[in-house]
Amino acid sequence: MTVIEIRIELKKGVADPEGKNTWKTLESLGFEGIRGVRSVKLFEVDLDMPADRAVAAGEEMCRKLLANPVVQSYKVAVR
Amino acid sequence: MTVIEIRIELKKGVADPEGKNTWKTLESLGFEGIRGVRSVKLFEVDLDMPADRAVAAGEEMCRKLLANPVVQSYKVAVR
Repeated sequence: MTVIEIRIELKKGVADPEGKNTWKTLESLGFEGIRGVRSVKLFEVDLDMPADRAVAAGEEMCRKLLANPVVQSYKVAVR
Repeated sequence: MTVIEIRIELKKGVADPEGKNTWKTLESLGFEGIRGVRSVKLFEVDLDMPADRAVAAGEEMCRKLLANPVVQSYKVAVR
């Protein structure tokens, strides 16, 4: 069994309203020194196959379903 | 500048409809060998402070805003 981690984040320059709103709210709660907040989506997937095939499958999952290549980039790693 | 990573996941036994739906959809697309899919929320926060204070601040952010302690657990790490 291989556990992979699929990390999907917004490409540089793409608006991140969730990150922005979180940043604002944290500041309104009194947190200081914040210079940026970025939201990232992560999936952990358990796969019944060896690590190399699992990573390849994770990348195909991103291409076929999980990531929007116009605004998002992804990374797949074995946990 | 310290970049921290705040990882918020559902506690064991808590329903994860996003993970379940992703799992089902991946299978309907023909992916085989999937034994589990878990959704995780991640925030990357840039903080103008040293690493030890940044991690403590990240944990306080979870307690005050980002995590729901009833159903979620969190981990804060320096990137």
